[in-house]
Amino acid sequence: MIIFTEEEVFNYHMADAIKDIKRTLMRQNNGKIVNRKHVMMPVGDSNMIMNFPALDIEQGLTSTKIMSIKDGVSKAHSILTDTDSGEVIANVAASYLTELRTGAMSGIATDMLARKDASVLGVIGTGRMAVQQVFGVLSVRDIEKIILFNHHPEKAEYFKDKIRGLTVTCDIEIASNVNTLTKACDIIITATPSREAVFDDTYLKEGVHINGIGAFMPSTKELNVDTIGRAKYVVVDYKKGVESSAGGFIEAVKQDKFKFENMIQLNDAIEMSFDRNEKDITIFKSIGASLYDMAVAIGAYEKLK
Amino acid sequence: MIIFTEEEVFNYHMADAIKDIKRTLMRQNNGKIVNRKHVMMPVGDSNMIMNFPALDIEQGLTSTKIMSIKDGVSKAHSILTDTDSGEVIANVAASYLTELRTGAMSGIATDMLARKDASVLGVIGTGRMAVQQVFGVLSVRDIEKIILFNHHPEKAEYFKDKIRGLTVTCDIEIASNVNTLTKACDIIITATPSREAVFDDTYLKEGVHINGIGAFMPSTKELNVDTIGRAKYVVVDYKKGVESSAGGFIEAVKQDKFKFENMIQLNDAIEMSFDRNEKDITIFKSIGASLYDMAVAIGAYEKLK
Repeated sequence: MIIFTEEEVFNYHMADAIKDIKRTLMRQNNGKIVNRKHVMMPVGDSNMIMNFPALDIEQGLTSTKIMSIKDGVSKAHSILTDTDSGEVIANVAASYLTELRTGAMSGIATDMLARKDASVLGVIGTGRMAVQQVFGVLSVRDIEKIILFNHHPEKAEYFKDKIRGLTVTCDIEIASNVNTLTKACDIIITATPSREAVFDDTYLKEGVHINGIGAFMPSTKELNVDTIGRAKYVVVDYKKGVESSAGGFIEAVKQDKFKFENMIQLNDAIEMSFDRNEKDITIFKSIGASLYDMAVAIGAYEKLK
Repeated sequence: MIIFTEEEVFNYHMADAIKDIKRTLMRQNNGKIVNRKHVMMPVGDSNMIMNFPALDIEQGLTSTKIMSIKDGVSKAHSILTDTDSGEVIANVAASYLTELRTGAMSGIATDMLARKDASVLGVIGTGRMAVQQVFGVLSVRDIEKIILFNHHPEKAEYFKDKIRGLTVTCDIEIASNVNTLTKACDIIITATPSREAVFDDTYLKEGVHINGIGAFMPSTKELNVDTIGRAKYVVVDYKKGVESSAGGFIEAVKQDKFKFENMIQLNDAIEMSFDRNEKDITIFKSIGASLYDMAVAIGAYEKLK
């Protein structure tokens, strides 16, 4: 059994994650992936243990991500088991991997959906999860400028320093209000726990692509329901998860602005070609699912072992 | 992170398991245990990966048993995670522990339900799971004679040699037909995958206690529906599991011979006293549940670390 620490898995990068998630999605389309809903176990009123089980039949490995959330801080490990021998073969630290895989998923979706000439990226909500979101987009589009918005400007400043330190070389600006950001951006990342829409639909730039990765509970609704309603394509990572837990989408359906059957799941999307014009709006919504955690846990194990 | 092999966990014994399962049941009654249904992931047509997640809030540990079943052979490991630090602290080999905990559960139930003067134990179905069933009963009653039955007598012979080698000193006989066994036994263990009842209700000895541990699918029905119907007490390890998966019980309910609401779950049973006369029949049905796997995984970790 091999143990990989958080420090060690930093040697597994965005390009690796994008490649390995695509591989898993192809296998999913070939019936070789079993994805199971997460298991939630409350520890008192506010803390939580979550398990994310999945199986890669082609690889002969099963992955169980075990995530603890304590005082708002999460820590995760993915346990890999060989289905032939029944032995546990690896314990892969999965906190960075969880951020990385979400960024890679947004990268894959952005590559399919965003305008080819997209050059300005906006980030609404500049917490920990947003870092790899930026790298996911940077790996698929030539971004000249990044605009950040946070209700607490000092958090946007901190984020700016952080991604600069991680070798982001393009312009980075901080917007004083969210409309300044949305009017200028070709691609927008929303990564907030907001209970209401974090942008106004009327101030979006034509042809924008939005990656919504913050909301993961019925009460969290960062995406604008009008925007969801008029998007030409809505790609999601896990339909069942969005239907049960993505607040903005549940609200949009309730208001009769959107139909769940119009969602395209990421594995289907990678085998499609998208016909968008310069003004069409597109959305990728990520809620998380066990198979994505498995994709990067197995990928990291293979690369680093 | 500590790894305990199958050889190492042999130093965790029946008495330990009984003590630790009782502790977990008490904690369950205090609202400190979270038990989750197992997660099944099919590997092709006949193989399987199963996860058994549970949480001990008082201990601050979560346990996920990951079990692979390949060509009929199962192998299991329990992964323990500290809920405070989020770190994986142990990988405990859990194949022997799974057999041991089932034996310990039967021991606890037998101690509550069987006649105090029970001295003859019958074993119907003498596979791997039955070994620790014998030790579970031996640890709570003074057994003078064990009678074995298997449709393949050579398997009963093999089992006899096996438990003799594990220091069982009482008489051990092999019955040529099952009625010979049931007529003589005060306690019966059924540990078969049979799709029909493995004994005739009319040939049971008065006052018998039965531990049914074999059936775990709707199609497996080793316990006689008439016996289920006339039992004074039916204690089960996990009500939901029995309702969904214990074939004999589902059949008995369908035939209107039994009501699920008459089941007593093991954690409730340990706080009750049972009023049985010399002729009453009692049953313990085990289907398995994550919290029992957790109880022995944590117990073994504590004892062996």
